[in-house]
Amino acid sequence: MTDPYTPTKDDKFSFGLWTVGWQGVDVFGGAVRPRLDPVEAVHRLAELGAAAVTFHDDDLVPDDATRTRELERFTKALAETGLGVEMATTNLFGHPVFKDGGLTANDRDVRRYALAKVLRNIDLAAELGAKTYVLWGGREGAESGATKDVAAALDRYKESLDLLCGYVREQGYDIRFALEPKPNEPRGDILLPTVGHALAFIESLDESSRVGLNPEVGHEEMAGLNYAHGIAQALWHGKLFHIDLNGQHGPRFDQDLRFGAGNVRGAFWVVDTVESGGYDGPLHFDYKPPRTEDDAGVWASAAACMRNYLILRAKVTAFRADPEVQQALRASGADQLAQPTLAGGETWRDIQGVTVDADELGRRGLAYEHLDQLALEHLYGVR
Amino acid sequence: MTDPYTPTKDDKFSFGLWTVGWQGVDVFGGAVRPRLDPVEAVHRLAELGAAAVTFHDDDLVPDDATRTRELERFTKALAETGLGVEMATTNLFGHPVFKDGGLTANDRDVRRYALAKVLRNIDLAAELGAKTYVLWGGREGAESGATKDVAAALDRYKESLDLLCGYVREQGYDIRFALEPKPNEPRGDILLPTVGHALAFIESLDESSRVGLNPEVGHEEMAGLNYAHGIAQALWHGKLFHIDLNGQHGPRFDQDLRFGAGNVRGAFWVVDTVESGGYDGPLHFDYKPPRTEDDAGVWASAAACMRNYLILRAKVTAFRADPEVQQALRASGADQLAQPTLAGGETWRDIQGVTVDADELGRRGLAYEHLDQLALEHLYGVR
Amino acid sequence: MTDPYTPTKDDKFSFGLWTVGWQGVDVFGGAVRPRLDPVEAVHRLAELGAAAVTFHDDDLVPDDATRTRELERFTKALAETGLGVEMATTNLFGHPVFKDGGLTANDRDVRRYALAKVLRNIDLAAELGAKTYVLWGGREGAESGATKDVAAALDRYKESLDLLCGYVREQGYDIRFALEPKPNEPRGDILLPTVGHALAFIESLDESSRVGLNPEVGHEEMAGLNYAHGIAQALWHGKLFHIDLNGQHGPRFDQDLRFGAGNVRGAFWVVDTVESGGYDGPLHFDYKPPRTEDDAGVWASAAACMRNYLILRAKVTAFRADPEVQQALRASGADQLAQPTLAGGETWRDIQGVTVDADELGRRGLAYEHLDQLALEHLYGVR
Amino acid sequence: MTDPYTPTKDDKFSFGLWTVGWQGVDVFGGAVRPRLDPVEAVHRLAELGAAAVTFHDDDLVPDDATRTRELERFTKALAETGLGVEMATTNLFGHPVFKDGGLTANDRDVRRYALAKVLRNIDLAAELGAKTYVLWGGREGAESGATKDVAAALDRYKESLDLLCGYVREQGYDIRFALEPKPNEPRGDILLPTVGHALAFIESLDESSRVGLNPEVGHEEMAGLNYAHGIAQALWHGKLFHIDLNGQHGPRFDQDLRFGAGNVRGAFWVVDTVESGGYDGPLHFDYKPPRTEDDAGVWASAAACMRNYLILRAKVTAFRADPEVQQALRASGADQLAQPTLAGGETWRDIQGVTVDADELGRRGLAYEHLDQLALEHLYGVR
Repeated sequence: MTDPYTPTKDDKFSFGLWTVGWQGVDVFGGAVRPRLDPVEAVHRLAELGAAAVTFHDDDLVPDDATRTRELERFTKALAETGLGVEMATTNLFGHPVFKDGGLTANDRDVRRYALAKVLRNIDLAAELGAKTYVLWGGREGAESGATKDVAAALDRYKESLDLLCGYVREQGYDIRFALEPKPNEPRGDILLPTVGHALAFIESLDESSRVGLNPEVGHEEMAGLNYAHGIAQALWHGKLFHIDLNGQHGPRFDQDLRFGAGNVRGAFWVVDTVESGGYDGPLHFDYKPPRTEDDAGVWASAAACMRNYLILRAKVTAFRADPEVQQALRASGADQLAQPTLAGGETWRDIQGVTVDADELGRRGLAYEHLDQLALEHLYGVR
Repeated sequence: MTDPYTPTKDDKFSFGLWTVGWQGVDVFGGAVRPRLDPVEAVHRLAELGAAAVTFHDDDLVPDDATRTRELERFTKALAETGLGVEMATTNLFGHPVFKDGGLTANDRDVRRYALAKVLRNIDLAAELGAKTYVLWGGREGAESGATKDVAAALDRYKESLDLLCGYVREQGYDIRFALEPKPNEPRGDILLPTVGHALAFIESLDESSRVGLNPEVGHEEMAGLNYAHGIAQALWHGKLFHIDLNGQHGPRFDQDLRFGAGNVRGAFWVVDTVESGGYDGPLHFDYKPPRTEDDAGVWASAAACMRNYLILRAKVTAFRADPEVQQALRASGADQLAQPTLAGGETWRDIQGVTVDADELGRRGLAYEHLDQLALEHLYGVR
Repeated sequence: MTDPYTPTKDDKFSFGLWTVGWQGVDVFGGAVRPRLDPVEAVHRLAELGAAAVTFHDDDLVPDDATRTRELERFTKALAETGLGVEMATTNLFGHPVFKDGGLTANDRDVRRYALAKVLRNIDLAAELGAKTYVLWGGREGAESGATKDVAAALDRYKESLDLLCGYVREQGYDIRFALEPKPNEPRGDILLPTVGHALAFIESLDESSRVGLNPEVGHEEMAGLNYAHGIAQALWHGKLFHIDLNGQHGPRFDQDLRFGAGNVRGAFWVVDTVESGGYDGPLHFDYKPPRTEDDAGVWASAAACMRNYLILRAKVTAFRADPEVQQALRASGADQLAQPTLAGGETWRDIQGVTVDADELGRRGLAYEHLDQLALEHLYGVR
Repeated sequence: MTDPYTPTKDDKFSFGLWTVGWQGVDVFGGAVRPRLDPVEAVHRLAELGAAAVTFHDDDLVPDDATRTRELERFTKALAETGLGVEMATTNLFGHPVFKDGGLTANDRDVRRYALAKVLRNIDLAAELGAKTYVLWGGREGAESGATKDVAAALDRYKESLDLLCGYVREQGYDIRFALEPKPNEPRGDILLPTVGHALAFIESLDESSRVGLNPEVGHEEMAGLNYAHGIAQALWHGKLFHIDLNGQHGPRFDQDLRFGAGNVRGAFWVVDTVESGGYDGPLHFDYKPPRTEDDAGVWASAAACMRNYLILRAKVTAFRADPEVQQALRASGADQLAQPTLAGGETWRDIQGVTVDADELGRRGLAYEHLDQLALEHLYGVR
């Protein structure tokens, strides 16, 4: 008998090299684990059932001197394991040169260098077969008011994205961009802080169809926002290009817990939204194995990310298939919401002057508690 | 000598009838003040220096039976005082019929009734001269996952806005709509929770040019977001149609403090952004006089809202005019950000391969602390 | 076959009359449900399997004129159902007279009246057999700095508690007091905002042994604090006299969700701490049936509170009994923590100069992710 | 004419070596500034007007091999500048050996090593004249429930503190301990998360009079708590032994902004509480110069911390001396709160049955908005 929660490549799970490779440096302490060779990461993730890896330029090729050799070793490992590279991104936050951001740094020289760094890594991304190129602007922001002209920064952000879209188009790369919002940390306030702000910004771009989102669970939850609602809106706009799954406990520092181990109730609805909302891209984990873990703990946590997704997928599938749930959905009128408010052919004239017995209508119970309790019992595994 | 912080009509300050009229009912206690007659509100606000009032239908005309008489009294008071009505909005949250929302209620009858209620009050808004019609969807949301299909809810929201835009167009009303985002309270999670989500949604509308935002200070700060950044982005999109000024102390219940008495440092940058960012609409206060206040305290707090704005306006004006500040802005490269990253005629080809001495560039200090300290000293009034 | 999650009186579940009786008034809307007769509440809760009810004076006897009759009806209902009254408390927050607090109101007349109101209801509590008397100081706080002298307020709080302890002692009542902390809402900042602050305050009292805590899940989580840690510390001090179970989604307004439906992962550890930490008092729910619910929804949500506790109790019992968990606990050294750092007879002299190979020791993995994943799988019901 | 905001040694300002010495390493990026020699720090801080420095063992003597020489250089610098060492503390969080904490690590070897490290640095603290020894347990906590037995951890914490108190007593050192609470970061949840929890814990110690608090502005504000209220309660318990001043913007990552540049309104009340609440110890800044700053920016930010304190001190002094404020305080009954609720000789018998006209009393306005507006205008510098 097979464990139903064992991942296979069909599940499309992927991991950033920087996730299992996180050495544990934080504001208060140094590295607790040695550098992880990307080649080892590929092999270990393949054994665990992942389908792909993703990378920042600096993760994979930290040093120009060894670039060719490292890329050879890496592509060989991919070939040996059958793992793909589904996404890539640029590190525009680690080096001191990016302390004020990359694409929106006040210093124009920094912005030009940042763009060059992105362009170079897009070439590598295309070469390795990535279909999504993520931009997380972690240092694009400010600690104080006058230091960053937000309108000018958005102009520069747009200028950069327009240039990058043109580049990809002209090169004929089969790559789409995905912006990753975050409200704060490491900057006091980051530009494009939520799913919503990034969605709005995208509409301003010259080639907005090439640009979508890569929302991260923890980033939205740091603002106290409902992540499932966020990706539902992104899907509604046709912009959920990629996804970053992890865990967080509300407004506080960026915890990057393994998926399933933060807001558990939220995770149930995240998986429900992913599975039933029309997203069919990679399921990418962007988390950090805690500093308490050694190498074995790193892989235990990586395996658990995938396992938790599969556990939750089974639950949401059972939830949606449960006849009692379907009845409760109807009882709550949840299915009515898909019905237009106006009947075919009606206009405002048909609505104007509509009256109801508001008191009577207000007394109708919606039985949401019953419906939600059914969901919770599926989550708890007692139905 | 005139007190420089005494408001006049030219300052375009306005107040919701429901602000000074708040009776103090909250989850834990009942009314502490009697109902405030809108006519008295108009007279008192006029004496304090306000230029306009705003209203929900239920504030002004709570009872159909007395509608005509109340409107006559109200318009008479406006005429006597010279106050205008600059904005109006619909109460789609107070009556039990709206316990699951209005425009996105699961119950279609409720949605139809809600639309009718909006249409009716738009007519009144137009009649009274309001140029902005606000939609705050405080009950449009959910406490639990399955009870609200977010995609369907956004469809209904769009359907409603499209209908309303058509109505205003066909009636020839000189009215624009302004959505007011809020992350939560009174619902567990509210749809269109931030400035960003609402901006993105607007782009989906049939007549998006008729719809913009009415962001409220406290609503963004409840999500830990930087309100000045939020309205700066709204202005960048051309969508800051109206503004709700008040105070809040970060993620917690909606405090609706008088303007200037919450996040003081934030308020400085809010006024700076309003004054220098191109907004020239009404300065509308949406706050609640605390339950500790009697009638005198109500008017003291209303006067303080305007006074604090004027104090801060004087400060930001002085800040921007201060030669030392201008030098500090240049030293920090803040002015460089307005310069395109690419020179005229450059393309990605000119950027590709750009190199810099990143270590050297990374060592350059940006002197943001000096610049921000200058701002702070203007705020403290010691420069 | 019996449903293992059906409550019985042995489970010691209790509910405040004000929970199932909440009519749904909030800052933005009015009552959605009619008043619930306490007698009906008693009967319905008994049918659902609760063991006891609790009350504020104003819940049970809102009107002096009908006091005698209402108490007769109520005690008759208790007798008929076998339900007990295990706790009582005073409403010092609803009436406008308490808008600045009760025991720490600036107005001395208010303080005296508040004390009298408490004394009177303690008599009723004793008469009805309550063993715990809760003090939630929801209005004891401030919106602004100068308005409340915190040191003086703590003096008055202590004066009140000392008086109340003396009263109970002199009356020979078998009653202990339990303070219920909350960080904010309805006041901007509430005195004794967390479990910790209240624990510290208790130590200052003349008869501190008579006073402990009644911590509420949501109140601690509104401050982003770990509730299980909080009650573990309260137990460590011997001060967990009572408990308020409900649900919350982090820093935002007080949601008062049904137990089990907020922070699900947190709820697992709450039940684990309650069950294994030595608490054996009533399991009291202090939640609010959402405004979306009618009468049926009220009882569905009440039943779900108990059911969720029993589901989680079964899970934590299985977790602690699981041999693989026990092995993982040992592997993580969790059991070592019970062992004193010094061996018997050792003093600082034996510690001074202790050296270790810190690098070697720092490389040891703690396997916490494995252990936590086991817990999570018990929570998910897949082990 | 002297600038009234120029610090002198009489102002008792002090800085941690690790503050101005922070090199900018965070989770997302590396060092942006070279190591700062403690000797240079001493000289620069002396020039700026500080009175003292403080240190972790690892700041001052990172390497045993150079310990003697470094201490000689350091003490020489102190002598040359007249700066004192007023506080010291132990780094029990940076090295991987402390990844699970020091005094409450599950691994007993780690705990013994941690204690030895503290003992050794207490000797140095005493030698250098420090009167306060701070314990910040930044790694004493957990990311997940089962990994840390909170009761056992508190036992070990108490064991450690009891040992340390005994050591200081037996050595005859004139040193008191100060615990520094923090809710989270770098651990998911930290033990003794707030001022309150630490105050309560102290009461459990064998020699509790030797142990007090070192509360940090940002740490309490990360939990949304009112810091001025927190230190007011600590003072009320006689436990404000030391203070850490900095800035924060509510629940998010630990920002460690310069003092005065976070919650400005809060800072006013912090200084008011410090100045009028009976604290007369050092005014210690625990902040981080942002990564955007070079060496000049570091000193600009350090100077600004002190300057902002002096600006605020002048404001709160003027506020308390303002006759209109004094009248407003009386009008608000703030002075009544110092008056006992019971008159001399009264007992509960005199309170029992007290009645008031609650409706009438509830109508009395408290004029808190007027009082707070006076405070705000002092803060804004317009009175």
